[in-house]
Amino acid sequence: MSEQHFGLVDHSNTYPPHQDHREEETFELSEHGELLYSEHSNQSFSTKRPTYEDGNTIDWLREENAERERQRCLKSQRGARGLLLPFMDASRMWFVIVLTGIGIGVTGAWLDVLVKWLADFREGHCVHGFFYNQPSCCSGFDAGEICTDWQSWGQYLDIQYILGQSLLHSVVYVALAVVFAGSAAILVQFYAPYAFHTGIPEIKAILGGYVLDAFLSPWTLLIKALGLALAVASGLSLGKEGPLVHVACCMAYLLSGLFKQFRHNEAQKRKLLAAAAAAGVSVAFGSPLGGVLFGLEELDTFANESDVMWRGFVTSVIAAMSLQYIDPFGTAKLVLFQVTSITDTWRAFELVPWLLLAVAGGVLGSLLIKLNVRVALYRRHSALNDWPLLEVVGVSALTAAISYLIVFTRVQTSELVANLFQECDPSKTDYHGLCNPTAMWENVFLLIVTALLKIALTAWTFGMMIPAGIFLPTIAVGASLGRAVGLLTQGLQRAYPGAWVFSSCPPDPTVPCVSPGFYAVIGASAMLAGVTRMTISLVVILFELTGALSHVLPIMISVMTAKWVGDACGKDGIYSVWIAMRKYPWLPPVAYRDKGETAAQVMTPIERLVIIEDGCTLGELDNLTRKYNFHGFPVVRDAELVGYVTRDKLIEFLFAREPATLSTRRCTFSSRRSTAEDNLENLSNLVEEAILQLRKEQPQELVVDMFQKLNLRQILFTHEGRLTGMVTKTDIVALLNLHFPHTAALSELPGRP
Amino acid sequence: MSEQHFGLVDHSNTYPPHQDHREEETFELSEHGELLYSEHSNQSFSTKRPTYEDGNTIDWLREENAERERQRCLKSQRGARGLLLPFMDASRMWFVIVLTGIGIGVTGAWLDVLVKWLADFREGHCVHGFFYNQPSCCSGFDAGEICTDWQSWGQYLDIQYILGQSLLHSVVYVALAVVFAGSAAILVQFYAPYAFHTGIPEIKAILGGYVLDAFLSPWTLLIKALGLALAVASGLSLGKEGPLVHVACCMAYLLSGLFKQFRHNEAQKRKLLAAAAAAGVSVAFGSPLGGVLFGLEELDTFANESDVMWRGFVTSVIAAMSLQYIDPFGTAKLVLFQVTSITDTWRAFELVPWLLLAVAGGVLGSLLIKLNVRVALYRRHSALNDWPLLEVVGVSALTAAISYLIVFTRVQTSELVANLFQECDPSKTDYHGLCNPTAMWENVFLLIVTALLKIALTAWTFGMMIPAGIFLPTIAVGASLGRAVGLLTQGLQRAYPGAWVFSSCPPDPTVPCVSPGFYAVIGASAMLAGVTRMTISLVVILFELTGALSHVLPIMISVMTAKWVGDACGKDGIYSVWIAMRKYPWLPPVAYRDKGETAAQVMTPIERLVIIEDGCTLGELDNLTRKYNFHGFPVVRDAELVGYVTRDKLIEFLFAREPATLSTRRCTFSSRRSTAEDNLENLSNLVEEAILQLRKEQPQELVVDMFQKLNLRQILFTHEGRLTGMVTKTDIVALLNLHFPHTAALSELPGRP
Repeated sequence: MSEQHFGLVDHSNTYPPHQDHREEETFELSEHGELLYSEHSNQSFSTKRPTYEDGNTIDWLREENAERERQRCLKSQRGARGLLLPFMDASRMWFVIVLTGIGIGVTGAWLDVLVKWLADFREGHCVHGFFYNQPSCCSGFDAGEICTDWQSWGQYLDIQYILGQSLLHSVVYVALAVVFAGSAAILVQFYAPYAFHTGIPEIKAILGGYVLDAFLSPWTLLIKALGLALAVASGLSLGKEGPLVHVACCMAYLLSGLFKQFRHNEAQKRKLLAAAAAAGVSVAFGSPLGGVLFGLEELDTFANESDVMWRGFVTSVIAAMSLQYIDPFGTAKLVLFQVTSITDTWRAFELVPWLLLAVAGGVLGSLLIKLNVRVALYRRHSALNDWPLLEVVGVSALTAAISYLIVFTRVQTSELVANLFQECDPSKTDYHGLCNPTAMWENVFLLIVTALLKIALTAWTFGMMIPAGIFLPTIAVGASLGRAVGLLTQGLQRAYPGAWVFSSCPPDPTVPCVSPGFYAVIGASAMLAGVTRMTISLVVILFELTGALSHVLPIMISVMTAKWVGDACGKDGIYSVWIAMRKYPWLPPVAYRDKGETAAQVMTPIERLVIIEDGCTLGELDNLTRKYNFHGFPVVRDAELVGYVTRDKLIEFLFAREPATLSTRRCTFSSRRSTAEDNLENLSNLVEEAILQLRKEQPQELVVDMFQKLNLRQILFTHEGRLTGMVTKTDIVALLNLHFPHTAALSELPGRP
Repeated sequence: MSEQHFGLVDHSNTYPPHQDHREEETFELSEHGELLYSEHSNQSFSTKRPTYEDGNTIDWLREENAERERQRCLKSQRGARGLLLPFMDASRMWFVIVLTGIGIGVTGAWLDVLVKWLADFREGHCVHGFFYNQPSCCSGFDAGEICTDWQSWGQYLDIQYILGQSLLHSVVYVALAVVFAGSAAILVQFYAPYAFHTGIPEIKAILGGYVLDAFLSPWTLLIKALGLALAVASGLSLGKEGPLVHVACCMAYLLSGLFKQFRHNEAQKRKLLAAAAAAGVSVAFGSPLGGVLFGLEELDTFANESDVMWRGFVTSVIAAMSLQYIDPFGTAKLVLFQVTSITDTWRAFELVPWLLLAVAGGVLGSLLIKLNVRVALYRRHSALNDWPLLEVVGVSALTAAISYLIVFTRVQTSELVANLFQECDPSKTDYHGLCNPTAMWENVFLLIVTALLKIALTAWTFGMMIPAGIFLPTIAVGASLGRAVGLLTQGLQRAYPGAWVFSSCPPDPTVPCVSPGFYAVIGASAMLAGVTRMTISLVVILFELTGALSHVLPIMISVMTAKWVGDACGKDGIYSVWIAMRKYPWLPPVAYRDKGETAAQVMTPIERLVIIEDGCTLGELDNLTRKYNFHGFPVVRDAELVGYVTRDKLIEFLFAREPATLSTRRCTFSSRRSTAEDNLENLSNLVEEAILQLRKEQPQELVVDMFQKLNLRQILFTHEGRLTGMVTKTDIVALLNLHFPHTAALSELPGRP
C-alpha cells in the first residue's frame, strides 16, 4: 500500500551526506564557531541550557520557554512564597529599569560638564581654579561685566602681540584637539575595541538576538563614556547620541548581571536593553517621547510587546528627569538646542525653499552614506588598517586646523547648531554676525562651505577608532544649509517685498516674514532623514525642540520628501549599511517585496542539505556533529521528514554514551518505531517541538515576514510529508542584503587581526 | 519497505467523515454564513477573488497577495506609465489620508460648536439671533459687564418669582435633555443601528480582519456625528472620544471607496482605517502623539508596519492642525481641558494620597466594568431589549433631574473636568466654590457623591441605543475623586503645617504646597487606567494636557498602579469585555501564558475534523461543500496530509463541471499522482500555497503567538507527515476568552431581532 503512494521516492539520501553543501547555519563567525564547539565537545554537558558565546544567535523560542518554566515555578510556590517571589521578581526588573534611567541621566549630565570643561580648556583657563569651565568661572560677574577670572592662554602667557596671541591660540587649539582625540583612540584601541563608532548597528543586531557580550562589558562602558567626552571635546565631526545609546545599554547589561533571572536568560536581558536604548536617545536629545519612538521605529524592539514599550517609556522619562534635575548648565533646559521665538505662522511660498532643502537633504544624505562606505572600505584595505591611532591623530589635526579658520566651525558643533536654530532677536547677542543683513552673501557662502566641509569630515570620522555618533554632525550640515537657504529667501523677500509671491507677508517691513532659524530646523530634519531614513521619531524629536504644533507639518513634509529622495538614491540608511558591512545577522523590519519568487528560490534544497537519515549508527551521528558546526540537522526517513534536531542536543546525548557502543548501536528519531529491536536507541525526545513546515510554493515575502515576526532560526519545507529543503535566518539576511554590494566587507571584529 | 515504516496507520479516516465535528471555521455569524454561501453556490464565479460579506473574516494572505500582484502589474508598465502609475497610486492614498485628517478635524470643531449651542440652549437664548451660543452672543461685551443680549428662559418669559424661575429652568433643563437624547436614539434606531455605543470594540475587530461594512457606511457616519452632538448636549454621562474614532473611520472608509485600489482590497482599506482611528483620538484630546500611541497600544495596528504608523501620525497631525486652525471657541486651545498653573514641583509625601487614588482608580474601574456588563446583560434579557427608546428617554430624564440638583453635575462634563483640573488662582473665577477653604467638607462630600453618581450613570449609559464614549465620564469620576483627595490633603497640611510629613512644604503659609488640581489629573489617569487598561497612550495624552515633564512620573506611577490593581480585580478592559460579549473574532495582542498546555489541548483532533480523502468522487466533494460552510478542508490520503483547500475554490471548481460527471469522476489533490488514470481529475492547483504545519507538542502560547503575529486563519498539525489536527482562529479566540463568563452574551447585531 505504501509502495503505491510513495513510489516516487527519489531523494533517498544516504549517509554520509553530499559534500557540496553550503554552511546554512553559521551565524557564529566561523573561527568562533569552531572554537566554541570544540570546547564544548570536550567539556561536561551538565547544564541543560547552553550559554551562548560571542558570535552566536540566541534561540528565542528556547529562551522564552525557559522563562515560562521559571515563572511557573515561581508561581507554584506555596503560600506567601508564591505571592512574594513573583513580586520580588518584578521588583528586580524595575530596580534595573529605574537605576538604568537614573544612571544614564547622570552620565549624560556628567558628559555635558566634562565636554564643556575640556572644550573651554582649549581656549583658556580659570585663574581661581583649574577645574572650572568658563561659565562657572565667570558666574560671579554680572551680565555685561568683563570676566577677569577667565584667562585665555594668550593672557596667561602674557603675549602682547595680536599675531602672537592668534598663533598661540590656534596652536593650542589644534594641539589639544590632537591630544584629546589621541587619548580617546588610545583608550579605545588598548582597553575596549568595541567602544569605537556609534554602537547602534551592534545594538540593533544584539536586540535581534546576536550575542556580543564583549560589546556590553563594564570596561566598554567606562571607555566609551570617557572616550566620548574626549572625542567630542576634540572638535572632531561627531556627536554623542549613538554612543549614549550604547552607554545606556552597557549600563543596563551591567545592572542586569546582578540578577540570575537576566544573567541566565538572553531574551529577558534583551528586553531590558531595548528599554535602555530608548533612554539613551531620551537623554541625548532631551526628548523622552522621541526616545520611545526611536526604539519603536529604528530598533524595532517593541513590536507586539507593549510591556517592553512601557519599560522603555519609564526608563526614558526617568532618564530625562534625572538630567533635568541635575541641570548641568543651570539653564533648566532639557533639550540640547531649544528653538525659541518661532513665529506663529508660516506662508505657503516657503514650501518651495523647504522642498528644495528636503531634496538636498535626501541627496546629500545618500552622498554622505556612500562616501562613508567608500572611506570604510579604503580604510580596511589600505595601510590605515594597521595604524588607526595615526589616522585619528591626523584627522583630528586636520579637522582642528580647518575648523579654526571658519567662524562657524571653530565652536563646538552643538553650540553651532543652537545658534543656527536661533532666530534673530535685536535684544540678544548676534552670533557670528548671522543677523547682519549686509553680510548675507558672506554668511551664505560660509554656511555652504561649512556644510560641505562637515560632510567630508563626517564621512571620514564616522568609523575611526573613537566613539562617534552621526546625529549631531548631520544636524549641523542640515542646519547650515537650511540657514543659508533661509537667509537667501529672506534676502529675496526684503529685496522684492512687493512681489506677487510675497504678498502673504505682513505689509510692515519691520515685521519679519521669513524666519531663517526655522529653515535651519527644516534643513536638519531633511538631512537626518536622508542619512538615517527614520521618519516618525525624527519628527517627534524635532517637534519637541520647536514645540509649535503648527510647525510639525513642514517638518513632516521635509522628512518625508528627504526619505523618498534618499531611498531613490540608495535603499539603506547609514545603520543598515554598517550592519550589512559587518554582516550581523539582523533582519531589517522593512516589508520585503519579492518579484514573484517563491520560497523555492531561497531555500537550500534537500540535495545540498546535511541531513540525518533515521536509522544511522550513533557513530555516524558523532562524525556528523564533529564535522559540521551547523545549529542543527533535519532528520528524514526515505525523504519523509521526521523532525529537526539541534547539534548541541546531539552532542549532549552522545557525550553520555560509551564510545565503544557508538559504532554498533543505531538510532531512530521516530516515536512510532519500536525500540524492542536490538541495538536501536530511540532519540525521539531530542527532536525539537516547535518546527515550522511550509510548502516551497509559498511566496518569498511571506517567508521573510515569518522570520521577521517570529524570530525564527529555520523553516523546513515539505511537500506531502517529504522534506524538500530548508531556509535559515542567514539565507534571509543574505537575501535582504543582495542589493548591497559591500556586504560583509568589514565582517571581522574591530581590534582583531 | 514502506510497510515497515508506516505500519502504524490507524487514523485511516474514510469518507464521509464523522458527524460529531464542531464548526471549526464559522467566523461568519451562522445565519449570515448560510445566506452568503447559498447565494454563492447559485451565482457565477467569474471573479477569482471573493468579495467578503458582513460577518466574515478577511484572508490577509490572499489580500496581501492580490495587492502584491497589483503593484507588480503597475510597475511593469512600460515607459512613463511605469513611473506615473505607481506615483498616482501613492497620491490616491495620500489624498485619502490628508482629506480624512482635515475632515475629522473639521467634524471635531463642528461638533464642539453644535454641542455648545445645544447645551446653552438648555439655559436660555440670544436675543439678536437664535443661532448664537452664549459666548458668541456676549462677545461684544467687555469682561465684567453684564451681558444683556443673552436671556435665560425665565427672563424671556418674564417670570419674576425666583421659585418660578427655578422651576421653569429645571423643567426646561430636563425636558430638553429628554428631547436631545430621544432624538439621538430615534436617529440611531431607525437610520443607523451601528451608530450606537462607542465603536471602538468594532473598530478593533475590523482592523483585525472582521468584515462589517454596514458599521462604516456614510449613513452611520452622518447619524453618529449628529447623534453624538445631541447625546453629549443632553447631559447624559457619556463622552465623544470613542465615537469620534468611529466617525474618523467612517470618513476614511467613505473616501477610500472612491478608489478601486482600496475598494477591492480589504487589507489596504484596513491600513487606511488604522490611520484614521489615530486621528480620531488626536482630535478628541487635541493630542496628536497620544493618537499615534493609542493606535499603537489599544488598536495594535502598527505592529511591524512602520508605513501604517507614519500614515497614522500624518493623519493625526493634520487633524489636530485643522481643529486648531478652525479654533471653534476662539481660545487657541487645542486640548479639551488644558491644565494651567501647575506648580513646579511635588513633594514625596504626596505619593501616599496619589497611590491611594491609583488603588481607588483600579478598584472603581473594575467595578465600573463589572456594573456595565451586568447592565448590558440585564438589558438584553429584560423588557428593555424591546424598548430601547424608552430606556434612553428614562435614563436621560433621570440623569438630568439628578444632575440639576448638584452644582458639579449641572454643567457639561467637559466643563466640570476643566474646572476640576484648574488650580485655585485668586485672580480667576472660583468655579463652584472649590477654592473656598471653609467649605472643604461640603466640597469633598459633593465631589464623592458626584463620582459615585457618575459611576452608576455611566455603567448604565454606556451601551444604550445612542452614541456614547466612556473616556470623558471616566475622567470626570477620577477627577472628582482626585480633587476630593487633594482638598483633604490640602486641608490636612493647612491644619498641621508643622507636622513632620509636611516639613518639605515651603514655610510661608501663603505659598500653596498642595495643588488639588493636579490631584484631579492623577485621579483621572488612575480611573482611565482602571477602565481601559491602557498605559503609555494615557500617560502621553495626560502629559500633553499638563505639559510639565516633572509631573509625568506621578502620572506614570498612578497609571501603572491602577492597571495592576485593576488587572488583579478582573483581567479585561472595557473594550475587551465588549468584544468578548459581542463575540467578534479578535485576538487581543496580550502575551498569552499557558500553564504547560500544548497545542494538542486546543486543536480539533483529526477524528473530529471534516476532511477530504484524496481520491473521493467529485459528487462527494459537492456534498461536502453544500453540507458544511467551513472556510476550508484539509486533504489527506491514508492520514498523510496532502494539503488544505478552501471551500470557495472547491465551489468555483465544481460549478464549472457538468453535474452529470460529478458522481463518476474522482479527484486527487496530489501533484505526484498520475492523472493518466481514467476518471481522475487533478485538483492539486486548488491546494493553498501557504499552509503552516506544526507538531502538536508545541506549547500553546507559541501557537497563540503565531496567530497574533501572522494574522493566520488556521494551522495544521502533523506528526511525521500525518495530519493530527487543526487549530483555527476561532479556537484561539475562544481560548483567550475562556476566563470571561459572558462571552457571546450579546452576539447578535444591534437592531436585528
